[in-house]
Amino acid sequence: MITLLTDFGLLDGYVGQLKAVIFEINPFVNIVDLTHDIEPYNLTQSAFLLSKTSERFPPDTIHVAVVDPGVGSTRRPLLAVTPKGSFVAPDNGILSAVLSEQSGRSTVFQISNQTYWRHPVSSTFHGRDIFGPVAAHLSLGLDPEKVGEEVSDPICHPVNKPIWADGKLQGEIVHIDRFGNLITNIDRELMNYRSSLSVFIKNEVITDLVANYSQSEGLMALPGSFDTLEIALNHGSAAKHLNAHVGDNVCVFDAF
Amino acid sequence: MITLLTDFGLLDGYVGQLKAVIFEINPFVNIVDLTHDIEPYNLTQSAFLLSKTSERFPPDTIHVAVVDPGVGSTRRPLLAVTPKGSFVAPDNGILSAVLSEQSGRSTVFQISNQTYWRHPVSSTFHGRDIFGPVAAHLSLGLDPEKVGEEVSDPICHPVNKPIWADGKLQGEIVHIDRFGNLITNIDRELMNYRSSLSVFIKNEVITDLVANYSQSEGLMALPGSFDTLEIALNHGSAAKHLNAHVGDNVCVFDAF
Amino acid sequence: MITLLTDFGLLDGYVGQLKAVIFEINPFVNIVDLTHDIEPYNLTQSAFLLSKTSERFPPDTIHVAVVDPGVGSTRRPLLAVTPKGSFVAPDNGILSAVLSEQSGRSTVFQISNQTYWRHPVSSTFHGRDIFGPVAAHLSLGLDPEKVGEEVSDPICHPVNKPIWADGKLQGEIVHIDRFGNLITNIDRELMNYRSSLSVFIKNEVITDLVANYSQSEGLMALPGSFDTLEIALNHGSAAKHLNAHVGDNVCVFDAF
Repeated sequence: MITLLTDFGLLDGYVGQLKAVIFEINPFVNIVDLTHDIEPYNLTQSAFLLSKTSERFPPDTIHVAVVDPGVGSTRRPLLAVTPKGSFVAPDNGILSAVLSEQSGRSTVFQISNQTYWRHPVSSTFHGRDIFGPVAAHLSLGLDPEKVGEEVSDPICHPVNKPIWADGKLQGEIVHIDRFGNLITNIDRELMNYRSSLSVFIKNEVITDLVANYSQSEGLMALPGSFDTLEIALNHGSAAKHLNAHVGDNVCVFDAF
Repeated sequence: MITLLTDFGLLDGYVGQLKAVIFEINPFVNIVDLTHDIEPYNLTQSAFLLSKTSERFPPDTIHVAVVDPGVGSTRRPLLAVTPKGSFVAPDNGILSAVLSEQSGRSTVFQISNQTYWRHPVSSTFHGRDIFGPVAAHLSLGLDPEKVGEEVSDPICHPVNKPIWADGKLQGEIVHIDRFGNLITNIDRELMNYRSSLSVFIKNEVITDLVANYSQSEGLMALPGSFDTLEIALNHGSAAKHLNAHVGDNVCVFDAF
Repeated sequence: MITLLTDFGLLDGYVGQLKAVIFEINPFVNIVDLTHDIEPYNLTQSAFLLSKTSERFPPDTIHVAVVDPGVGSTRRPLLAVTPKGSFVAPDNGILSAVLSEQSGRSTVFQISNQTYWRHPVSSTFHGRDIFGPVAAHLSLGLDPEKVGEEVSDPICHPVNKPIWADGKLQGEIVHIDRFGNLITNIDRELMNYRSSLSVFIKNEVITDLVANYSQSEGLMALPGSFDTLEIALNHGSAAKHLNAHVGDNVCVFDAF
């Protein structure tokens, strides 16, 4: 199985061309779209969604992630082999969350062997000409070591982790989904240590810590599908209700 | 073949995770997206589109419909086996139109046998953990009776049917498509009984009853792709032109 | 492989129905979406994207293009067999760019043999009832001559080509992609004849002629993924920055 995560959108036929080169090399592979609606060039959003979504795929999945403002420059194309899947992507930080989660358990290669590229290689569309073809060959069983030499210094931006201070756990909103649910970077396991919690966000205190969306009438905090603390509003958008944005602080403390 | 109808949107990777679990269980099945753009939580829109769109699929198709505000609560997961296909969905009324069309010809089961679920089961994403896996197993030939016990009381909201009054047939707009065409609940067969009709909508009278979009210069009424009376505007949006919305009345009477 | 290009959008289930009839006839074919976001009825945009995107697919690909304001009227359904693939589409000019590129190397058939249609044929959805089924049968090896008689007069609107005047090459913007990049109709090969160029657009002169998006800080001109001259803005939208639209003039002349 090959997955695709890009900022290509669905209008311009870029995704179709990417799929065409993959199917031309391996007509029998299943291609799954993770998303093509990444905000153009947004590497933070990409790194988060790539890491969280890919976790649920079988470990032999090949993930193609192309959000690539430096396409055509000297930035390296990479292949990261991890226990949670293989990742084909530019060396621009898009793998930060994946590599940070799998630190010490991953091997990263620079994709330099042009045997598995599509030629001629354009200078503006490496998704079609490098990343897609390499992923397709990997899905046919290509040995990762064949794509190029191992590297030890992939770009890996620090991933914001929540911090404890003054008895409070301070995190932030890292994603807002289609329903207006606020996805935080506070791991659901951190919540297990507390019998009752309060969540402080945008001057509101949420004491409804629930298991699913139908257990509260209003704002609620719950362990969400991303396996982190999520703030939601019953039948509404927590994001609109709170005027909340990615990067806003979320604080968890013992309930009074 | 498995189809998917959800309110997940395409940004957040939820659809990709749903497809991953299906392909992991049955890599050879064809997955077709009906739509993922259902308005969040809109069960009326879901019920209509699910019923109308699924009609055109082969009867061995398995339709997965996940618009599920009560996810994680005690609402039952259901499997409905009908002459027009099998439907895997929450028991919240989303199957109303399907079951009403196939009344007396369907068997409904509560999905309770956890053998065919994905574990651990989250409390916020049963599409991935219950509905998807069960559909995948069904596509491999699983006997429907194995998913759980038969039930006789699925939630089935009454589906608005047009009514005759004072020699007029009064219906309503049940869907507006991308082109701004107004889809009504007036069955095309009802129109066959009349030699000439007038359609009254939003203070306009339409007498152009045509067979296709190029037969009128302006507003027209025609039997549409949903097999019901449709109001359209040549090369334009009838919805914008008439400022029409879902729920607005549409009246059909004999032409003068 | 079958590709789809339509103005159906993704909400209404029309694309799903089209895929259903294809998979019912050939469950083993790969279906790739080129785009379903064509502006309703926009044949110019369709003709351009169909021609440019299909170029990158294997020559045995069958492209289904359904932007069809005249559906149900007497406009003919066509099959064009070209060295760059086969095209199933209405005879309304959508094949203009494809046929103009492949002039003298294509054979065009009127799809008249109803054996390969889906019955009953609706008057508003020939994508599902004619174009899809015929494409599916072609993917199974159906001889193109079986679909109907050859025709010599498909509708073929003239495709705007850039012209030389006063030592300048005058072209226009033919597409704006998701990133706000301005795609012109000036072939990249025309640029190869010049050592240094200036590009004049919307009262701005661009002298940064580069190879990829990271080689300029601001507005730049480069050979783009569509194999034509493209105007881009580093990390931004050239379309917004210049308030540019499809049809705007773009002029290329020797740098001073």
